[in-house]
Amino acid sequence: MRHHRKVLVLHVPERVGFINLTRQVEQAVRDSGVQEGLCLVNAMHITASVFINDEEEGLKQDYARWLESLAPFNPGSDPGKGGYLHNRSGEDNGDAHQKRQIMGREVVVAITAGKLDFGPWEQIFYGEFDGRRDKRVLIKIIGE
Amino acid sequence: MRHHRKVLVLHVPERVGFINLTRQVEQAVRDSGVQEGLCLVNAMHITASVFINDEEEGLKQDYARWLESLAPFNPGSDPGKGGYLHNRSGEDNGDAHQKRQIMGREVVVAITAGKLDFGPWEQIFYGEFDGRRDKRVLIKIIGE
Amino acid sequence: MRHHRKVLVLHVPERVGFINLTRQVEQAVRDSGVQEGLCLVNAMHITASVFINDEEEGLKQDYARWLESLAPFNPGSDPGKGGYLHNRSGEDNGDAHQKRQIMGREVVVAITAGKLDFGPWEQIFYGEFDGRRDKRVLIKIIGE
Repeated sequence: MRHHRKVLVLHVPERVGFINLTRQVEQAVRDSGVQEGLCLVNAMHITASVFINDEEEGLKQDYARWLESLAPFNPGSDPGKGGYLHNRSGEDNGDAHQKRQIMGREVVVAITAGKLDFGPWEQIFYGEFDGRRDKRVLIKIIGE
Repeated sequence: MRHHRKVLVLHVPERVGFINLTRQVEQAVRDSGVQEGLCLVNAMHITASVFINDEEEGLKQDYARWLESLAPFNPGSDPGKGGYLHNRSGEDNGDAHQKRQIMGREVVVAITAGKLDFGPWEQIFYGEFDGRRDKRVLIKIIGE
Repeated sequence: MRHHRKVLVLHVPERVGFINLTRQVEQAVRDSGVQEGLCLVNAMHITASVFINDEEEGLKQDYARWLESLAPFNPGSDPGKGGYLHNRSGEDNGDAHQKRQIMGREVVVAITAGKLDFGPWEQIFYGEFDGRRDKRVLIKIIGE
Protein backbone atom coordinates (compact mmCIF):
# COMPACT_ATOMS: atom_id res chain seq x y z
CA MET A 1 0.00 0.00 0.00
CA ARG A 2 1.25 3.45 -0.89
CA HIS A 3 0.50 6.52 1.20
CA HIS A 4 1.16 10.20 0.74
CA ARG A 5 0.63 13.27 2.93
CA LYS A 6 0.60 16.91 1.98
CA VAL A 7 -0.37 20.00 3.99
CA LEU A 8 -1.55 23.17 2.23
CA VAL A 9 -1.33 26.56 3.95
CA LEU A 10 -4.10 29.00 3.07
CA HIS A 11 -4.73 32.61 3.95
CA VAL A 12 -8.06 34.30 3.26
CA PRO A 13 -7.72 38.04 3.97
CA GLU A 14 -11.44 38.43 4.76
CA ARG A 15 -13.57 36.69 7.35
CA VAL A 16 -15.36 34.55 4.73
CA GLY A 17 -14.01 33.32 1.41
CA PHE A 18 -13.56 30.33 -0.87
CA ILE A 19 -10.40 28.99 -2.54
CA ASN A 20 -10.32 26.37 -5.29
CA LEU A 21 -7.87 23.61 -4.25
CA THR A 22 -8.38 21.26 -7.18
CA ARG A 23 -5.05 21.86 -8.93
CA GLN A 24 -3.11 21.35 -5.70
CA VAL A 25 -4.93 18.12 -4.87
CA GLU A 26 -4.33 16.84 -8.40
CA GLN A 27 -0.61 17.54 -7.94
CA ALA A 28 -0.60 15.62 -4.65
CA VAL A 29 -2.22 12.65 -6.38
CA ARG A 30 0.49 12.72 -9.06
CA ASP A 31 3.21 12.99 -6.40
CA SER A 32 1.74 10.03 -4.51
CA GLY A 33 2.16 7.60 -7.39
CA VAL A 34 -1.19 6.07 -6.38
CA GLN A 35 -3.17 4.68 -9.33
CA GLU A 36 -6.17 3.25 -7.42
CA GLY A 37 -7.20 4.45 -4.00
CA LEU A 38 -8.82 7.15 -1.90
CA CYS A 39 -7.87 10.78 -1.34
CA LEU A 40 -8.99 12.52 1.87
CA VAL A 41 -8.93 16.33 1.91
CA ASN A 42 -9.89 17.98 5.20
CA ALA A 43 -9.71 21.32 6.96
CA MET A 44 -7.40 21.06 9.99
CA HIS A 45 -9.27 23.96 11.62
CA ILE A 46 -12.77 23.88 13.04
CA THR A 47 -14.05 27.13 11.55
CA ALA A 48 -13.32 26.09 7.96
CA SER A 49 -14.62 23.54 5.46
CA VAL A 50 -13.50 21.50 2.51
CA PHE A 51 -16.32 20.76 0.07
CA ILE A 52 -16.96 19.94 -3.57
CA ASN A 53 -19.06 22.10 -5.83
CA ASP A 54 -18.94 24.19 -8.98
CA GLU A 55 -16.40 26.90 -9.87
CA GLU A 56 -18.87 29.72 -10.51
CA GLU A 57 -18.62 33.18 -8.99
CA GLY A 58 -22.33 33.71 -8.35
CA LEU A 59 -22.54 30.38 -6.54
CA LYS A 60 -19.80 31.38 -4.11
CA GLN A 61 -21.60 34.64 -3.34
CA ASP A 62 -24.85 32.69 -2.88
CA TYR A 63 -23.16 30.36 -0.39
CA ALA A 64 -21.72 33.26 1.61
CA ARG A 65 -25.10 35.03 1.78
CA TRP A 66 -27.00 31.83 2.62
CA LEU A 67 -24.61 30.79 5.38
CA GLU A 68 -24.86 34.28 6.84
CA SER A 69 -28.64 33.88 6.99
CA LEU A 70 -28.42 30.46 8.68
CA ALA A 71 -25.70 31.45 11.18
CA PRO A 72 -25.23 35.25 11.26
CA PHE A 73 -21.95 36.72 12.42
CA ASN A 74 -22.35 38.29 15.86
CA PRO A 75 -19.41 38.98 18.16
CA GLY A 76 -21.63 38.99 21.25
CA SER A 77 -22.15 36.14 23.69
CA ASP A 78 -25.83 36.65 24.61
CA PRO A 79 -28.03 34.25 22.62
CA GLY A 80 -31.03 36.48 23.42
CA LYS A 81 -29.38 39.20 21.32
CA GLY A 82 -28.17 36.93 18.52
CA GLY A 83 -24.81 36.15 20.11
CA TYR A 84 -23.06 32.84 20.71
CA LEU A 85 -22.14 31.33 24.11
CA HIS A 86 -18.88 30.21 22.52
CA ASN A 87 -17.87 33.87 22.33
CA ARG A 88 -17.65 33.98 26.16
CA SER A 89 -14.33 32.19 25.64
CA GLY A 90 -12.88 35.39 24.14
CA GLU A 91 -13.55 34.38 20.55
CA ASP A 92 -15.89 36.16 18.14
CA ASN A 93 -16.30 33.23 15.75
CA GLY A 94 -19.27 31.33 17.19
CA ASP A 95 -21.02 31.70 13.83
CA ALA A 96 -18.08 30.18 11.95
CA HIS A 97 -18.37 26.87 13.85
CA GLN A 98 -21.95 26.58 12.59
CA LYS A 99 -21.23 27.62 9.01
CA ARG A 100 -18.52 24.95 8.91
CA GLN A 101 -20.99 22.21 9.87
CA ILE A 102 -23.31 23.11 6.97
CA MET A 103 -20.49 22.94 4.43
CA GLY A 104 -18.64 19.99 6.01
CA ARG A 105 -15.08 19.30 7.20
CA GLU A 106 -13.81 16.95 4.54
CA VAL A 107 -14.22 15.22 1.23
CA VAL A 108 -13.14 11.74 0.18
CA VAL A 109 -12.45 11.39 -3.53
CA ALA A 110 -11.80 8.20 -5.46
CA ILE A 111 -8.54 7.87 -7.39
CA THR A 112 -8.86 5.84 -10.59
CA ALA A 113 -6.07 5.33 -13.14
CA GLY A 114 -3.94 7.87 -11.28
CA LYS A 115 -6.49 10.70 -11.34
CA LEU A 116 -9.26 12.20 -9.20
CA ASP A 117 -12.36 10.33 -10.35
CA PHE A 118 -14.65 13.34 -10.81
CA GLY A 119 -17.89 14.20 -12.53
CA PRO A 120 -17.75 17.03 -15.08
CA TRP A 121 -18.24 19.97 -12.68
CA GLU A 122 -16.70 18.72 -9.45
CA GLN A 123 -14.10 21.06 -7.97
CA ILE A 124 -12.61 20.97 -4.46
CA PHE A 125 -12.97 24.15 -2.39
CA TYR A 126 -11.64 25.43 0.88
CA GLY A 127 -14.33 27.41 2.69
CA GLU A 128 -13.08 29.93 5.26
CA PHE A 129 -15.44 31.34 7.87
CA ASP A 130 -12.95 32.98 10.26
CA GLY A 131 -10.10 34.14 8.08
CA ARG A 132 -7.37 36.77 8.25
CA ARG A 133 -4.76 34.25 9.41
CA ASP A 134 -2.99 31.15 8.12
CA LYS A 135 -4.97 27.94 8.12
CA ARG A 136 -4.08 24.42 7.00
CA VAL A 137 -5.66 21.74 4.87
CA LEU A 138 -4.52 18.10 4.98
CA ILE A 139 -4.36 15.83 1.95
CA LYS A 140 -3.93 12.12 2.73
CA ILE A 141 -3.79 9.57 -0.05
CA ILE A 142 -3.78 5.79 0.30
CA GLY A 143 -3.88 3.12 -2.37
CA GLU A 144 -1.60 1.31 -4.73
CA MET B 1 -5.01 -4.35 -2.13
CA ARG B 2 -8.16 -4.91 -4.14
CA HIS B 3 -10.14 -2.10 -5.74
CA HIS B 4 -13.42 -1.92 -7.58
CA ARG B 5 -15.29 0.85 -9.39
CA LYS B 6 -18.91 1.02 -10.44
CA VAL B 7 -20.95 3.91 -11.84
CA LEU B 8 -24.74 4.00 -11.40
CA VAL B 9 -26.92 6.06 -13.75
CA LEU B 10 -30.01 7.56 -12.15
CA HIS B 11 -32.95 9.49 -13.53
CA VAL B 12 -35.43 11.27 -11.27
CA PRO B 13 -38.33 12.55 -13.40
CA GLU B 14 -39.13 15.38 -10.95
CA ARG B 15 -36.93 18.20 -9.76
CA VAL B 16 -36.54 16.67 -6.26
CA GLY B 17 -36.58 13.01 -5.30
CA PHE B 18 -34.85 10.22 -3.42
CA ILE B 19 -33.74 6.77 -4.62
CA ASN B 20 -32.60 3.94 -2.36
CA LEU B 21 -29.23 2.66 -3.65
CA THR B 22 -28.52 0.09 -0.94
CA ARG B 23 -29.11 -3.04 -3.02
CA GLN B 24 -26.87 -1.76 -5.84
CA VAL B 25 -24.06 -0.86 -3.44
CA GLU B 26 -24.31 -4.28 -1.80
CA GLN B 27 -23.97 -5.86 -5.23
CA ALA B 28 -20.87 -3.80 -5.96
CA VAL B 29 -19.33 -4.95 -2.66
CA ARG B 30 -19.96 -8.57 -3.62
CA ASP B 31 -18.53 -8.00 -7.08
CA SER B 32 -15.40 -6.43 -5.59
CA GLY B 33 -14.43 -9.50 -3.60
CA VAL B 34 -13.34 -7.16 -0.79
CA GLN B 35 -13.80 -8.65 2.67
CA GLU B 36 -12.34 -5.81 4.77
CA GLY B 37 -12.15 -2.24 3.54
CA LEU B 38 -13.95 0.98 2.78
CA CYS B 39 -16.70 1.79 0.29
CA LEU B 40 -17.09 5.35 -0.98
CA VAL B 41 -20.40 6.29 -2.63
CA ASN B 42 -20.64 9.83 -4.04
CA ALA B 43 -22.77 11.92 -6.33
CA MET B 44 -20.76 12.89 -9.43
CA HIS B 45 -23.00 15.94 -9.88
CA ILE B 46 -23.06 19.05 -7.73
CA THR B 47 -26.81 19.42 -7.36
CA ALA B 48 -27.29 15.95 -5.89
CA SER B 49 -26.40 14.11 -2.68
CA VAL B 50 -25.63 10.66 -1.39
CA PHE B 51 -26.61 10.19 2.26
CA ILE B 52 -27.59 7.51 4.74
CA ASN B 53 -30.89 7.48 6.56
CA ASP B 54 -34.06 5.46 7.03
CA GLU B 55 -36.30 3.97 4.31
CA GLU B 56 -39.56 5.60 5.41
CA GLU B 57 -41.89 7.50 3.10
CA GLY B 58 -42.85 10.26 5.54
CA LEU B 59 -39.21 10.97 6.24
CA LYS B 60 -38.47 11.52 2.56
CA GLN B 61 -41.37 13.98 2.30
CA ASP B 62 -40.14 15.70 5.46
CA TYR B 63 -36.66 16.11 3.94
CA ALA B 64 -38.06 17.55 0.72
CA ARG B 65 -40.24 20.07 2.57
CA TRP B 66 -37.48 21.03 5.03
CA LEU B 67 -34.87 21.55 2.30
CA GLU B 68 -37.37 23.70 0.40
CA SER B 69 -37.74 25.89 3.50
CA LEU B 70 -33.95 26.23 3.96
CA ALA B 71 -33.20 26.87 0.27
CA PRO B 72 -36.38 27.60 -1.69
CA PHE B 73 -36.51 26.99 -5.42
CA ASN B 74 -36.50 30.29 -7.30
CA PRO B 75 -35.51 30.57 -10.97
CA GLY B 76 -34.65 34.26 -10.61
CA SER B 77 -31.21 35.76 -10.14
CA ASP B 78 -32.01 38.71 -7.86
CA PRO B 79 -31.24 37.83 -4.24
CA GLY B 80 -33.46 40.73 -3.14
CA LYS B 81 -36.41 38.81 -4.60
CA GLY B 82 -35.37 35.38 -3.36
CA GLY B 83 -33.31 34.49 -6.41
CA TYR B 84 -29.77 33.15 -6.73
CA LEU B 85 -26.81 34.89 -8.36
CA HIS B 86 -25.83 31.50 -9.76
CA ASN B 87 -28.90 31.68 -11.98
CA ARG B 88 -27.31 34.58 -13.93
CA SER B 89 -25.26 31.83 -15.59
CA GLY B 90 -28.42 30.63 -17.37
CA GLU B 91 -29.23 27.94 -14.78
CA ASP B 92 -32.30 27.86 -12.57
CA ASN B 93 -30.84 25.49 -9.97
CA GLY B 94 -29.17 27.84 -7.48
CA ASP B 95 -31.30 26.32 -4.73
CA ALA B 96 -30.16 22.79 -5.60
CA HIS B 97 -26.51 23.63 -4.87
CA GLN B 98 -27.53 24.63 -1.35
CA LYS B 99 -29.83 21.66 -0.71
CA ARG B 100 -26.97 19.37 -1.74
CA GLN B 101 -24.66 20.88 0.91
CA ILE B 102 -27.18 20.17 3.70
CA MET B 103 -27.53 16.51 2.70
CA GLY B 104 -23.88 15.95 1.71
CA ARG B 105 -22.02 14.70 -1.36
CA GLU B 106 -20.83 11.30 -0.21
CA VAL B 107 -20.81 8.53 2.33
CA VAL B 108 -17.98 6.23 3.36
CA VAL B 109 -19.12 2.85 4.65
CA ALA B 110 -17.02 0.17 6.32
CA ILE B 111 -16.88 -3.29 4.74
CA THR B 112 -16.54 -6.11 7.28
CA ALA B 113 -16.59 -9.81 6.44
CA GLY B 114 -17.59 -8.98 2.87
CA LYS B 115 -20.64 -6.85 3.77
CA LEU B 116 -21.60 -3.22 4.36
CA ASP B 117 -21.10 -2.80 8.12
CA PHE B 118 -24.41 -1.09 8.91
CA GLY B 119 -26.59 -0.39 11.91
CA PRO B 120 -30.15 -1.75 11.79
CA TRP B 121 -31.79 1.12 9.88
CA GLU B 122 -29.00 2.48 7.72
CA GLN B 123 -29.86 2.71 4.02
CA ILE B 124 -27.98 4.58 1.29
CA PHE B 125 -29.94 7.19 -0.66
CA TYR B 126 -29.41 9.30 -3.73
CA GLY B 127 -30.93 12.74 -3.23
CA GLU B 128 -31.78 14.63 -6.40
CA PHE B 129 -32.39 18.38 -6.31
CA ASP B 130 -32.29 19.22 -10.03
CA GLY B 131 -33.64 16.15 -11.77
CA ARG B 132 -35.32 15.37 -15.09
CA ARG B 133 -32.06 14.20 -16.65
CA ASP B 134 -29.53 11.38 -16.20
CA LYS B 135 -27.10 11.73 -13.31
CA ARG B 136 -24.32 9.48 -12.09
CA VAL B 137 -23.19 8.06 -8.75
CA LEU B 138 -19.72 6.60 -8.23
CA ILE B 139 -19.01 3.58 -6.04
CA LYS B 140 -15.32 3.02 -5.24
CA ILE B 141 -14.23 0.14 -3.03
CA ILE B 142 -10.77 -0.52 -1.68
CA GLY B 143 -9.59 -3.21 0.72
CA GLU B 144 -8.54 -6.81 0.71
CA MET C 1 -3.15 -4.21 4.57
CA ARG C 2 -4.17 -4.10 8.21
CA HIS C 3 -7.74 -3.53 9.34
CA HIS C 4 -9.37 -3.04 12.70
CA ARG C 5 -12.97 -2.70 13.87
CA LYS C 6 -14.33 -1.42 17.16
CA VAL C 7 -17.89 -0.61 18.23
CA LEU C 8 -18.56 1.93 20.99
CA VAL C 9 -21.83 1.86 22.94
CA LEU C 10 -23.11 5.25 24.06
CA HIS C 11 -26.01 6.33 26.22
CA VAL C 12 -27.12 9.95 26.42
CA PRO C 13 -29.76 10.28 29.17
CA GLU C 14 -31.39 13.34 27.54
CA ARG C 15 -32.88 13.71 24.09
CA VAL C 16 -29.95 15.84 22.83
CA GLY C 17 -26.32 15.71 23.94
CA PHE C 18 -22.70 15.51 22.84
CA ILE C 19 -19.96 13.08 23.91
CA ASN C 20 -16.26 13.49 23.14
CA LEU C 21 -14.99 10.24 21.57
CA THR C 22 -11.42 11.31 20.84
CA ARG C 23 -9.69 9.23 23.53
CA GLN C 24 -11.55 6.08 22.51
CA VAL C 25 -10.74 6.55 18.83
CA GLU C 26 -7.07 7.15 19.69
CA GLN C 27 -7.08 3.87 21.62
CA ALA C 28 -8.57 2.05 18.65
CA VAL C 29 -5.83 3.46 16.41
CA ARG C 30 -3.18 2.19 18.83
CA ASP C 31 -4.88 -1.22 19.02
CA SER C 32 -4.97 -1.44 15.22
CA GLY C 33 -1.22 -1.22 14.80
CA VAL C 34 -1.83 0.93 11.71
CA GLN C 35 0.87 3.53 11.11
CA GLU C 36 -0.42 5.02 7.85
CA GLY C 37 -4.04 4.85 6.79
CA LEU C 38 -7.59 6.07 7.25
CA CYS C 39 -9.93 5.91 10.22
CA LEU C 40 -13.69 6.01 9.65
CA VAL C 41 -15.91 6.86 12.62
CA ASN C 42 -19.67 6.77 12.01
CA ALA C 43 -22.93 6.71 13.88
CA MET C 44 -24.70 3.38 13.31
CA HIS C 45 -28.04 5.07 14.02
CA ILE C 46 -29.87 7.54 11.83
CA THR C 47 -30.81 10.06 14.49
CA ALA C 48 -27.22 10.64 15.63
CA SER C 49 -24.05 12.19 14.21
CA VAL C 50 -20.30 11.91 14.43
CA PHE C 51 -18.53 15.20 13.75
CA ILE C 52 -15.32 17.05 14.48
CA ASN C 53 -15.20 20.35 16.29
CA ASP C 54 -13.87 22.05 19.40
CA GLU C 55 -14.20 20.83 23.02
CA GLU C 56 -15.84 23.95 24.44
CA GLU C 57 -18.97 23.96 26.56
CA GLY C 58 -20.55 27.10 25.08
CA LEU C 59 -20.11 25.73 21.59
CA LYS C 60 -22.03 22.57 22.45
CA GLN C 61 -24.90 24.63 23.85
CA ASP C 62 -24.81 26.82 20.73
CA TYR C 63 -25.09 23.75 18.51
CA ALA C 64 -28.05 22.38 20.48
CA ARG C 65 -29.91 25.71 20.33
CA TRP C 66 -29.12 26.26 16.65
CA LEU C 67 -30.22 22.77 15.61
CA GLU C 68 -33.43 23.25 17.57
CA SER C 69 -34.11 26.42 15.56
CA LEU C 70 -33.42 24.69 12.22
CA ALA C 71 -35.42 21.53 13.03
CA PRO C 72 -37.57 22.01 16.15
CA PHE C 73 -38.66 19.00 18.19
CA ASN C 74 -42.36 18.34 17.69
CA PRO C 75 -43.96 14.97 18.45
CA GLY C 76 -46.88 15.65 16.10
CA SER C 77 -47.27 14.43 12.54
CA ASP C 78 -49.07 17.41 10.95
CA PRO C 79 -46.58 19.57 9.04
CA GLY C 80 -49.10 22.42 9.13
CA LYS C 81 -48.66 22.49 12.91
CA GLY C 82 -44.89 22.02 12.92
CA GLY C 83 -44.99 18.24 13.04
CA TYR C 84 -43.21 15.64 10.92
CA LEU C 85 -44.83 13.09 8.60
CA HIS C 86 -42.25 10.60 9.84
CA ASN C 87 -44.01 10.66 13.22
CA ARG C 88 -47.05 8.95 11.66
CA SER C 89 -44.92 5.79 11.93
CA GLY C 90 -45.29 5.93 15.72
CA GLU C 91 -41.98 7.74 16.28
CA ASP C 92 -41.60 11.21 17.75
CA ASN C 93 -38.10 11.82 16.38
CA GLY C 94 -38.75 13.40 12.96
CA ASP C 95 -36.67 16.40 14.04
CA ALA C 96 -33.71 14.20 14.96
CA HIS C 97 -33.38 12.87 11.39
CA GLN C 98 -32.96 16.46 10.20
CA LYS C 99 -30.56 17.54 12.95
CA ARG C 100 -28.40 14.54 12.07
CA GLN C 101 -28.09 15.66 8.43
CA ILE C 102 -26.79 19.09 9.46
CA MET C 103 -24.09 17.62 11.69
CA GLY C 104 -23.26 14.62 9.46
CA ARG C 105 -23.10 10.84 9.88
CA GLU C 106 -19.37 10.23 9.83
CA VAL C 107 -15.82 11.52 9.80
CA VAL C 108 -12.78 10.14 8.02
CA VAL C 109 -9.49 10.97 9.73
CA ALA C 110 -5.99 10.41 8.39
CA ILE C 111 -3.60 8.23 10.42
CA THR C 112 0.03 9.33 10.15
CA ALA C 113 2.92 7.79 12.09
CA GLY C 114 0.43 5.79 14.16
CA LYS C 115 -1.66 8.76 15.30
CA LEU C 116 -4.79 10.68 14.30
CA ASP C 117 -3.47 13.42 12.02
CA PHE C 118 -5.29 16.36 13.59
CA GLY C 119 -5.09 20.13 13.66
CA PRO C 120 -4.69 21.74 17.09
CA TRP C 121 -8.37 21.91 18.08
CA GLU C 122 -9.89 18.94 16.31
CA GLN C 123 -11.87 16.60 18.58
CA ILE C 124 -14.30 13.84 17.56
CA PHE C 125 -17.84 14.10 18.95
CA TYR C 126 -20.88 11.91 19.05
CA GLY C 127 -24.02 14.01 18.62
CA GLU C 128 -27.21 12.49 19.96
CA PHE C 129 -30.61 13.83 18.86
CA ASP C 130 -32.93 11.08 20.12
CA GLY C 131 -31.27 9.74 23.24
CA ARG C 132 -32.35 7.90 26.40
CA ARG C 133 -31.28 4.52 25.00
CA ASP C 134 -28.10 2.72 23.95
CA LYS C 135 -26.67 3.69 20.59
CA ARG C 136 -23.57 2.51 18.71
CA VAL C 137 -20.67 4.11 16.91
CA LEU C 138 -18.45 2.17 14.50
CA ILE C 139 -14.70 2.71 14.18
CA LYS C 140 -13.11 1.09 11.13
CA ILE C 141 -9.40 1.49 10.44
CA ILE C 142 -7.50 0.40 7.35
CA GLY C 143 -3.88 0.93 6.43
CA GLU C 144 -0.49 -0.56 7.10
